[in-house]
Amino acid sequence: MPSYKAPLEDVGFLLNDVFQFDRYNNLPGFADASADVREAILGEAAKLSENVLQPLNRVGDLEGCKRHDDGSVTTPKGFKDAFKQVAEGGWLGLSAPAEYGGQGLPVTLSQTVAEFQISANMAFSMYGGLTMGATAALIVHGKDEQKSKYLPKMIAGEWTGTMNLTEPHCGTDLGLLRTKAVKQDDGSYKITGTKIFISAGEHDMADNIIHLVLARIEGAPAGIKGVSLFVVPKVLVNDDGSLGARNGVVCGSIEHKMGIHGNSTCVMNYDNATGWLIGEENKGMQGMFVMMNEARLGVAVQGLAQSEVAYQNAVAYAKDRLQGRSLTGPKSPDKPADSIMVHPDVRRTLLTIRAFNEAARAMVVWTALKSDVAHRSDDAKERQAADDHMGLMTPVLKGILTDGGFANAVSAQQMFGGHGYIAEWGMEQFVRDARIAMIYEGANGIQALDLVGRKLPRDGGRAAMAFFGEVAAFAKEHGGDEAMKPYVDPLSNALGHLQQATMWLMNNAMAKPDNAGAGATDYMQLFGLTAFAYMWAKMAKIAQDKIAAEGATPFLTTKLVTGRFFMERMLPETALHLARIQTGAATTMELPAEAF
Amino acid sequence: MPSYKAPLEDVGFLLNDVFQFDRYNNLPGFADASADVREAILGEAAKLSENVLQPLNRVGDLEGCKRHDDGSVTTPKGFKDAFKQVAEGGWLGLSAPAEYGGQGLPVTLSQTVAEFQISANMAFSMYGGLTMGATAALIVHGKDEQKSKYLPKMIAGEWTGTMNLTEPHCGTDLGLLRTKAVKQDDGSYKITGTKIFISAGEHDMADNIIHLVLARIEGAPAGIKGVSLFVVPKVLVNDDGSLGARNGVVCGSIEHKMGIHGNSTCVMNYDNATGWLIGEENKGMQGMFVMMNEARLGVAVQGLAQSEVAYQNAVAYAKDRLQGRSLTGPKSPDKPADSIMVHPDVRRTLLTIRAFNEAARAMVVWTALKSDVAHRSDDAKERQAADDHMGLMTPVLKGILTDGGFANAVSAQQMFGGHGYIAEWGMEQFVRDARIAMIYEGANGIQALDLVGRKLPRDGGRAAMAFFGEVAAFAKEHGGDEAMKPYVDPLSNALGHLQQATMWLMNNAMAKPDNAGAGATDYMQLFGLTAFAYMWAKMAKIAQDKIAAEGATPFLTTKLVTGRFFMERMLPETALHLARIQTGAATTMELPAEAF
Repeated sequence: MPSYKAPLEDVGFLLNDVFQFDRYNNLPGFADASADVREAILGEAAKLSENVLQPLNRVGDLEGCKRHDDGSVTTPKGFKDAFKQVAEGGWLGLSAPAEYGGQGLPVTLSQTVAEFQISANMAFSMYGGLTMGATAALIVHGKDEQKSKYLPKMIAGEWTGTMNLTEPHCGTDLGLLRTKAVKQDDGSYKITGTKIFISAGEHDMADNIIHLVLARIEGAPAGIKGVSLFVVPKVLVNDDGSLGARNGVVCGSIEHKMGIHGNSTCVMNYDNATGWLIGEENKGMQGMFVMMNEARLGVAVQGLAQSEVAYQNAVAYAKDRLQGRSLTGPKSPDKPADSIMVHPDVRRTLLTIRAFNEAARAMVVWTALKSDVAHRSDDAKERQAADDHMGLMTPVLKGILTDGGFANAVSAQQMFGGHGYIAEWGMEQFVRDARIAMIYEGANGIQALDLVGRKLPRDGGRAAMAFFGEVAAFAKEHGGDEAMKPYVDPLSNALGHLQQATMWLMNNAMAKPDNAGAGATDYMQLFGLTAFAYMWAKMAKIAQDKIAAEGATPFLTTKLVTGRFFMERMLPETALHLARIQTGAATTMELPAEAF
Repeated sequence: MPSYKAPLEDVGFLLNDVFQFDRYNNLPGFADASADVREAILGEAAKLSENVLQPLNRVGDLEGCKRHDDGSVTTPKGFKDAFKQVAEGGWLGLSAPAEYGGQGLPVTLSQTVAEFQISANMAFSMYGGLTMGATAALIVHGKDEQKSKYLPKMIAGEWTGTMNLTEPHCGTDLGLLRTKAVKQDDGSYKITGTKIFISAGEHDMADNIIHLVLARIEGAPAGIKGVSLFVVPKVLVNDDGSLGARNGVVCGSIEHKMGIHGNSTCVMNYDNATGWLIGEENKGMQGMFVMMNEARLGVAVQGLAQSEVAYQNAVAYAKDRLQGRSLTGPKSPDKPADSIMVHPDVRRTLLTIRAFNEAARAMVVWTALKSDVAHRSDDAKERQAADDHMGLMTPVLKGILTDGGFANAVSAQQMFGGHGYIAEWGMEQFVRDARIAMIYEGANGIQALDLVGRKLPRDGGRAAMAFFGEVAAFAKEHGGDEAMKPYVDPLSNALGHLQQATMWLMNNAMAKPDNAGAGATDYMQLFGLTAFAYMWAKMAKIAQDKIAAEGATPFLTTKLVTGRFFMERMLPETALHLARIQTGAATTMELPAEAF
């Protein structure tokens, strides 16, 4: 059976040292999260994840969710109780606004807690995660009465939330959606249609489920400009907040999925369900984008979280498994064989995962801090810069962390040999669960297109230029430092590749957009690697400073070696991506479709 | 529901044109496989795979195998009938010796048939595949009476075979195995122990199961030099060939696996089971190596086969799925959206899979031909050269085709968006089934070590030098041909990287073997890419010649474009592998195990 320990030391290093959380004390909520408060909160979050959520991970996979004939759904044994603990512990509202019952703490903190919970039990964590995504859309675009009606209950975890976008014939291209909304005299709408892939669409863990639903109002323009967003509660809510009649929405079936069996992924049938408009008519995508950006970061963290737990279990197995002898002679001559940790190929695999995880975690903390600044700073320029960063990095994080997270789960499984293929060891569940993160909330190919086609050129490339400038300034500042050379030189080289690729796209993709499409995924990977390298260089600098000031510790020494491994073994991939981008689209687009 | 069409045109191109099968007519069995006979056989094999085996693929996944309290195992509905058809059609004995009832046709042909059957139904195909592996060991190392007792029934598919290597505490390091054999007065042995991960270990499709079992004879030396190979039938066979008493071997349980549910993967308990020595005492690994080499090629074909069927279904979906518009303006303005085939990122993905599949298939045919030469030529030098090739390419094929096959199944699944994660579409089964091929018959890290540590240096590097020489000669011969430049120049560049990497290992890994271990996987990938490039250059040359002689066809034009895609987009990866190899082991091995 797999196990999990929350990476508290690494998180502490990032929050306290690398990103100096306390520098942001001028922002609302930060002063309330002083170092000792953070430590207490994260310690409790770790315990909850390790002791309550993780033991339910395999239970959820084995039992799955069961739909009954009346459309109700039973979640796996233990999920309901665990959700109650999460709700009553206030974990859902950690960074939600105080006026709706939240604690108003920084998103940086709740995102870290999310990593722990997802590592422990990804399928379970989605019930709360989607609820937080739905509250985010309501907070930004909801009317006051909608906010006061729904938010306190959702933030308290008494009710949960969902996102209803996909229909059988459309996912990526939501302009094709057919679910219709008919306006009623009282200002409400009657919603009719079928939505698929609705995570947490129906379950038994909360008294009500607040569905946010994209639909087309009768007579609306065709395409994406005729799509509106509605709030459609499973149970209608009276004006006094009590629950009223059942609404016309029901779970038609549960999907049979490759993984995340503990989450009920539903086909939801809306049959004249009563809903209320969120935001303006035909502007539904605005509200949905708030949820999607929130959700994309959450999905990125799923990639990291599955990679982390898979790594931990692979390391434990590798230390324990005796098989063969070191190439340089027996290391445990008293035992029948050495542990497989003596094999360079095993270490190469484990270090690749570890170097990914630590850079990914740094990226998440960095971007979460920007999210806090974007939402909480009173300086418009600071807010804009932070928002630029978020827009640019969201597709990168979603694409890179989920591609890498899955690949790492596969590598970690490989360390177990045949046992990795056997369900009881738990590794194959990590692989199956991690797989979905590459697909939902915009498949990774779409993330790459979003980066290259939208986020990169936006505002004349302002966001990307700011990132390039920041990295170049770091490299310049520390380029003369001999100890930093193993980190700064490769970083500068990678930045050069990224800038060449960007230039190539500017020169070749304006007139021929297929050149952008053909290079999009490689550009996203090149961008991610460069951002990872920047994270590693920053972490190395802080580690060196701390060693100089306080002496070496195993944690800091390991950090420096892992960073060097990243620079030597992983970062050289940037040249490959640049080469691919520069080949353009000609060969890729040459064949007629029938030739495939 | 997924579908499958055997790639007959591509196979015909390889057999008839690229490798000129008829040149080998001097070898036994080849003249019997003239072009029209081949076409007839492959056409029948295609029909069987498409119409009988493929429809059972999902059934097998859903039902799995069921063990009953008496240790018997029921295979999924339809498997027994299908196996009867395969057996009665003579498919198991296609290239088995005529003296035991086989047809004596070239392995090149049976390997191609195997690809079709594995694409159609991987779990099913393993019952026959393992039987053929077991017969190979018996043919080479069995005593005459063992051969006449077991081979005819196995080749006829009345009985099946297994390989029993792994025990709970050892897989890779078989020297640790504990199953013991005690010699009896009549020359037989009593075998006692537990074997795990025994594919096709127990089932209801044949009257008897012939287990080949590694065990340690009482008093044998410790380690791998004390391991012997035994034949242990499930039901004892009387001297007249009739079935006698049940032997002391029983299926203790069926493993719960990530995939290949249609194959019964068993824990086998041997309790004083009667067995007979194959080959000499303590030389069991010799017989096992015959099976393992056979099996490794078979597993390599599993990688290719799953990649091929996943590709076919991804293409069908991509042509059918309307979503979004082309970046260069609507391509189907009369429809609500364009098919996703208009998107460069979709084509990039599909071409990557296709370019892999066609190169991989060429590698398999090339190597199968060498296997035929090695076993059937009467020229000792020719046999040796062919055997060198087999030894060198077996780990490369196993590692590269299964790593790539799995990655391609994942990419093909990605084309389906959310539907790819849903069981009914069948794509996630391809992923789960393909995953095992990276693990069994020697995990791919072991293949890489086998290549770098054993196959490369063997006989002073003779096999590798021959391969380098052949590729260099091809490049020299066609380097001046302008039309071949897009293929030959990248091939030469890749060969240069491979030679540099080989030189680096010679100079750096003798004294420090960890340098070989740390670079092994990258070296295997670099080797595989270079071999693929050679296959593509050969195929391009033949395609160009055929176009010049007979005019262009869609097949030949597509071949040339796909080959250019490989050279432009996939082959540049060789530089990355070289860079990684040249970093050596220092950083990888720097940390103490506790630091992980």
